[in-house]
Formats: sequence, C-alpha cells, structure tokens
Amino acid sequence: MNAPTAVSHLVPEFHPRPVPQALIDALQSRFGAQCSTAAAVREQHGRDESSFEVPPPAAVVFAEKTQDVADAVALAAQYEVPVIPFGVGSSLEGHLLAVQGGISIDLGRMNKVLSINPEDLTVTVQAGVTRKQLNDEIRSTGLFFPIDPGADATLGGMSATRASGTNAVRYGTMRENVLGLEVVTASGEVIRTGTRAKKSSAGYDLTRLMVGSEGTLGVITEITLRLYPIPEAISAAICSFPSIEAAVRTVIQVIQLGVPIARVELIDHHTVRMVNAHSKLGLREEPMLLMEFHGSPAGVKEQAETVQEIANEFGGNAFEWATTPEERTRLWTARHNAYFAAIQSRPGCRAISTDTCVPISRLADCLLDSVKEADGSGIPYFLVGHVGDGNFHFGYLLDPNDPREREVAEDLNHKLVSRALNLGGTCTGEHGVGLHKMDFLVTEAGTGAVEMMRTIKRALDPKNIMNPGKIFSL
Amino acid sequence: MNAPTAVSHLVPEFHPRPVPQALIDALQSRFGAQCSTAAAVREQHGRDESSFEVPPPAAVVFAEKTQDVADAVALAAQYEVPVIPFGVGSSLEGHLLAVQGGISIDLGRMNKVLSINPEDLTVTVQAGVTRKQLNDEIRSTGLFFPIDPGADATLGGMSATRASGTNAVRYGTMRENVLGLEVVTASGEVIRTGTRAKKSSAGYDLTRLMVGSEGTLGVITEITLRLYPIPEAISAAICSFPSIEAAVRTVIQVIQLGVPIARVELIDHHTVRMVNAHSKLGLREEPMLLMEFHGSPAGVKEQAETVQEIANEFGGNAFEWATTPEERTRLWTARHNAYFAAIQSRPGCRAISTDTCVPISRLADCLLDSVKEADGSGIPYFLVGHVGDGNFHFGYLLDPNDPREREVAEDLNHKLVSRALNLGGTCTGEHGVGLHKMDFLVTEAGTGAVEMMRTIKRALDPKNIMNPGKIFSL
Repeated sequence: MNAPTAVSHLVPEFHPRPVPQALIDALQSRFGAQCSTAAAVREQHGRDESSFEVPPPAAVVFAEKTQDVADAVALAAQYEVPVIPFGVGSSLEGHLLAVQGGISIDLGRMNKVLSINPEDLTVTVQAGVTRKQLNDEIRSTGLFFPIDPGADATLGGMSATRASGTNAVRYGTMRENVLGLEVVTASGEVIRTGTRAKKSSAGYDLTRLMVGSEGTLGVITEITLRLYPIPEAISAAICSFPSIEAAVRTVIQVIQLGVPIARVELIDHHTVRMVNAHSKLGLREEPMLLMEFHGSPAGVKEQAETVQEIANEFGGNAFEWATTPEERTRLWTARHNAYFAAIQSRPGCRAISTDTCVPISRLADCLLDSVKEADGSGIPYFLVGHVGDGNFHFGYLLDPNDPREREVAEDLNHKLVSRALNLGGTCTGEHGVGLHKMDFLVTEAGTGAVEMMRTIKRALDPKNIMNPGKIFSL
Repeated sequence: MNAPTAVSHLVPEFHPRPVPQALIDALQSRFGAQCSTAAAVREQHGRDESSFEVPPPAAVVFAEKTQDVADAVALAAQYEVPVIPFGVGSSLEGHLLAVQGGISIDLGRMNKVLSINPEDLTVTVQAGVTRKQLNDEIRSTGLFFPIDPGADATLGGMSATRASGTNAVRYGTMRENVLGLEVVTASGEVIRTGTRAKKSSAGYDLTRLMVGSEGTLGVITEITLRLYPIPEAISAAICSFPSIEAAVRTVIQVIQLGVPIARVELIDHHTVRMVNAHSKLGLREEPMLLMEFHGSPAGVKEQAETVQEIANEFGGNAFEWATTPEERTRLWTARHNAYFAAIQSRPGCRAISTDTCVPISRLADCLLDSVKEADGSGIPYFLVGHVGDGNFHFGYLLDPNDPREREVAEDLNHKLVSRALNLGGTCTGEHGVGLHKMDFLVTEAGTGAVEMMRTIKRALDPKNIMNPGKIFSL
C-alpha cells in the first residue's frame, strides 16, 4: 500500500454546469409550491455538516412520492443538470454540496413507514423516514432497528452512505441490514432491487451496489430493512481505564473471544471532560469504554462477567451500571452529543472528523501512534470510536480563521489514513468518501478498482447527472 | 408480481462462438502442460451437477497462480472467446456449461491458504481452496468458517454463486462473509476489492457486486473471509413431528423469537426414509428437524430449552441429542448425503432441484401447497430445507427417458416459483440463476433491474467473454 500522493484538497473545486431557465420553469410548472428557488431554501440544501462551502443548488424540489422524484430526475436528465438527493443534511463529507451546480431533491416529506412485517422482522419505509422516527413507530411490535450513526439521519441517507455506528459491532451496518430498495435511476425510471426473503442468489446484488453509492447511481426512494426483537435484557456499563491502550487492549480481547457485545465505544479523557461540561455527567475524566449487552438475563450477565474479567486484567475499574431505559438513554445521548460538546469546548471552532477503520488486531497500533501525533500538534481534538469494529474518529477542532491549523489537521489526517491503509484498513468506516477522501480512495482501492467504479458510473449515468463529483472525479 | 411468462427452457440453447486455432496455439505455447485439449478433460469441465448437456469447452487451462488466470483471460479477450471459471463442478444450475463455446479455466490448483489472521478472525485463500480444506487447515487456531452448502465446493465457486447452506441462519451467507476479493477482469487486469477491515464506506461495493455474479464479470482468484471462534459448546438435536406443518410452524416461531439457532434443517418423511436406506441411520420416518445450537454451555442449554418448548406445542417429540463431534458429523453427513440417497432411491434417475426462499412468515403457505402439488404429481421427490432462512429444496427424481416426467417437474417448479414470488420471495436462495432461472429472474426483479444488470455487464465485459449466457441472455 503506497502513501496517498497528496493531501486532499481543502476547498472543493466548483465547476458549475449551466442550469437553463427552461428547466426551472418546467420544475415550477410540474411541482408548483413543491419547488423553491428561494435563497434561504437553496442555502439550507447546499451545505451539510462538513466544513466545505460552495454556492447552493439552483432549485429545491420537495418530493412527496416516488413519482415526484422520477419526474424531477427525468427533467434534470433532459437538460443534463446534476441532481443531489437531500435527507436531513447530516453528511460529514460534503455529499450534499452542489460542486457541479444542479438541483436538490429533498426527500424529507417522503416520511411514511409503508409496511411493517413483524412476523418476518422486516419493515419497508420511504427514504425520508429517520431512524428515530422508525424506532418510535415500530415500538409496539417489540422490534427495533439497531443502526445508529449518532445523527438522526434519514434511512435513505444512511443507505446511500453505508452508515453504521454504535450497534454495528453486533448487528452489522446498512450493508447487512438493507434487504431491498426502490431506486429512481439516472433516466428517471423506477426499479426495485432485492426481495423480503432473507437471502437470495438471484443475479447481481444491485441492492448492495446502491448502498454506499452516495447518490451517484440513483436516488433511493424506498428501503426494506431487517428488524430485530428488542432483547429481553439490556444493560449498559461504563468502565474507566488508566490509559487508552488499556481500554483498546480490552476491546481487542473481547472481540477476539467472540463475545456478542452489542456496543463498545471508546471515549478518551479529553472527550470525557468535554462531555461532562456539556451534559453535566460527572464521569471520571479518564479513558472510558461505554458498553451495552443484549440478550437473555442470563446471557447478559455471562457476557458482562467475561468482559469485566478482561477489563480487570488491563487495570479497568469495576463497571458502573445503567439498567433502566432512562439511565441508558442519558448515557447514550451524552455519547452522541460528544461532537457538539467538543464544538462548544472551543467556541467558534469547526471540526474535521476522521473515519479510519482497521482490523481489530491493529487497532492499538493505529490509534496510539495517531494519539501521539495529535497530542504533539497542539490542535485540540476529541476522540471517540466504535472500537469493537476497529473504527474511530478524531475530531480536530479548528479555528476557521487560521489556515495553519487546517493544514496541520489535514496533515494529521493524512498520516492517520496512511497508517490505517498500511495496516490493512480503510479510509472510511462509515462516513463515505464524498469530496474529502477521493485521493485516499485511489490509494486504498487502486486505480483498477476505482476505474471499474467509474465504468459502472458512466454506464448507469451516461450524462453524469447523479450527484456528480463525489467518490471520484468525473 | 406477475407469473413467469414461460416455462424455462428444458434444454439450453447452444450458440458456439468460433475458437480460433491461433488461440489454442497461444494457450499451449504460454501454458504447456497446464493447457489440455484432451476430450476427457474437456468433457469433465463441460458439465456440472445440473441435468443439462451441451458440447464441452475447446480447451482447459489449469491455473496455478493469478497471473495464469490473467494471461488466459487476456488471450481469450484478444480472440473474443468465452472464458468459464471451474472449481470442483458442483453447480446445480449449469454455470459451467459452455453454451457459447470457449475455454475453461480450472482454479483447482490454486488451493493455498495464503494468510490466516486469527486475531482478526480473517483468512485469505486462493479461489480453489475448498471449504473443508479451509476448515482442516485452520483447525488449530480455534476458528472455523461456517458456510456449508453441502458439497465440498471451492470458495471461489461459493463466492461466485453467493452460496450459503445449513449455517446461514446464524452466520449469514457468502454475501456477509466475504470481506474482499482479488479478481481478474474481462481485460485480464488484476484488481482488489475490499480490505480486511470489518466495515467500510469507501466507494462502490465491488466485493458484493462480484459475489453472486456467477463468473460473468470476472474470475475470482483470491478471497478474504470472516472466521468465527469455534463455539465453546455445540449440540445437535433431532426432533420428529406429526406433520411437515408442525415442524415448519415450530421453525417460524423459533426465528420470530430471535433464538440464535445455528442450524435448523427440515427433512420430510420421504427423505428420512431415503437417508435411512443410504446411511443406515434408523431415524423415525416422520418429518424431522435437525438442529444445532452454538454458544456457551449455559447459552446452548437455554436455546435448546426454548426450542423444545415450542416444538412441544406443535406435537414434536423429545429431542434426541448428539453432543460428541462424531455423532454430530454422522448426522450432518447423512443430511448432506440426502441428495445422493435420493438419487439412489430411484436407480437411473436425474434430479432437478428447486431453490425458492420466502419471508419466514410465508414458509408454511409456500411449502405446504407445493407439497400437495408434488404429492399429486406422482413424481418421486426429496424435500430438505434450510427452513430457518425460509429456503427449501424439492428434488424431483426423474426418469431421464421420460420427457413427460420432465415436463411435469418443470411445471411443479414453475408453480412453486410463482408462489414464492407472490409471497415476496426469490426464485433462488443459494444456487444462483445459471441457465435455468433466467425467465424467473425477469419476473422477480423486473425488466428495469435486469436491464441494469445487463448494462453493468456490457460496461465491464464489452466483448461478452466472461461466462456468457448465464443469469440473463446476452
């Protein structure tokens, strides 16, 4: 694995393609009030949680049904104008930025849970349903959808970026949990992929080609997902450690033993301090694992005892338990607010988040060397991780007015990604490539594989209108 | 879901493309004794476990390393001659038949386990390693590879058909267990997909595009797989039921409750009788579930108690246990030999195997109506199923000299597939489309999705040389 050849571009290039007035007129005629060209609406749809900025899309269509999406894409295809699908805007990688101009299709109004099949542990939703909404609507069935990337993202957006998050160590990612899709193709045709059967060998796996394609091959309009019975017993525990290394070595051993832990999150001492300040939690300001165990009461007890034993070997403290739903929610809310807690710890800052993921045996090597580098840089940061999967995020907290800080942070990220790739890992465990990791993708996958991706893109989207300029340059 | 428009062709069409002598000369010059044109060798590589017959390939190249595959494909590409990858020939769907002529590439000599990473629960193998060989070679690590389609297939072939089998209910299929691949593309280029990291959002999921592509997009030469710790406790149990319905309803409830059962196989009373005759087992000749539980000793006990309780409700007998490895092996060998036991029960017959898979709640509907139809047809059959996944196989045992029987069997299969598709299922859970299910695939996926598959195929294999004529006509 060679080192990436260049630091990724700090500012995305903006090469707008013309958006003819005739298209805007046609959209307004077809969609009426469902189409907006108001500056505020366009601005809101032209950014995400990344630190990039380019001019916004020329119009926003608020789709209310699949046919709306199909018609908007067909019109855009007619005028060869880019189309960017929009959920809630929680991308961290610039997926929503109109780097080649174009129009935004907001799927937020397509927020119906279409059919629940509790006896098959499946549900079909429109793409604009968010994960929290889904779990609220299915609560009475005794089932839940585990994928939890932190943000209350739409399931369409989560599918498009192959999202995962805290529960993935046990339940897998969107890759494993999407059974089928409805997709509007680049020509405005509506296709379906997959079935509700749990497995299939029926032709190319179009479902998984679309999952993680970041809007570049089509617009996802419906999703059929796997659900899981809410475990009989759920317990969350916190364990503090004398060092990050001790915490990480505990996790490595837990995973290698095959303990079916449901969540195991690392939070470093800096970040615990930020979370304490933000959420008033009074946690011990040491590196910490936040864990959750799912199963039968006996199974949960057995898992927890095994993990506590391993933690003891590495100097971990006795677990502090949260067994009521309220206590658990408080802890996990604090974890999910780590990003905002960190942002508040340095007023006016912007965060750049890393997303490397490595084989579990390499986690300590990758993480500890990168901590040393980050500590030496003088840049404040937070550090959290879905460490059971080998995935962790540094968030470098930058003064946006200091270009030197940005350069130092990009250099840290560059070194981190090089290290992760050398250890057999990936530049992005769950956020996607977007605008920021295109060079890294080439280094990771090789020019041959990226050229295969481009060939597929050209074949399925010959006019290059589906979220162009993301994943690879084209 | 419409009904399939036509009964699948009983005899594959044979449209050979010319294989110039210049290609044969070039292959013999490059490969010497690794290239054979002997009739017996070609015959052996021109058939599989399907009941189809067409003339064999013009030559067989015995690849010993990836570069051999790359060179053979590059030469075939130069002369626009089809290439058919060959493992052990255990396909049930005609994948190995040279319906457009061409050459076979035998990967059987590429049988090295390249690297075992026990601490990461991963292994990288050459494509010709079989699943049993893999499990033998990794035994000392305390890990195992669970995917078990019955036949001792190569891992390349299992990847290419998205195979699964008895353990899939707990461990998933090849879709979930392949982390990365090395693939020779249609131009003879070598690419890599995926990494050893457990998850990734780095671009299109080329790994899962290749898994299940049946050799039509490239030749898989290396595979990185997930492994699992051998469970602390493993117990196998048999339970007999008064009816197929009682057995199936038990399984449905077990799955709906989320019991993490590792294997749950249905064997109907006809098939138990055949297995008894073949393997001298003395099993009670009633519909039967053959189950396996994996976990900690306490966990296995808990699972088994839950399942026994459910079985009792449906009139199931007390479990008969097999706890020693030898007893378990004897039972599972008998299960895997069901196919051969059935063939022997009607001397001279050939079997056509069905492969539908439906959402678990529809399993009883789909299965019981199809049993009625099969019983009414007068055709002898066996019936086994990975019923925890909603997947089951009828094997119609046909007199090859009686075209009427073949027609009746095709009609039974046609009705079964229509039923499965109407119930939200798939025409193939694990065998692949091959030659036999092309019409069914169109009905299942729709013309739009199949056209998307064709578009991808044309883009990645513009000369249509990679196992052409499989999955869809082209």
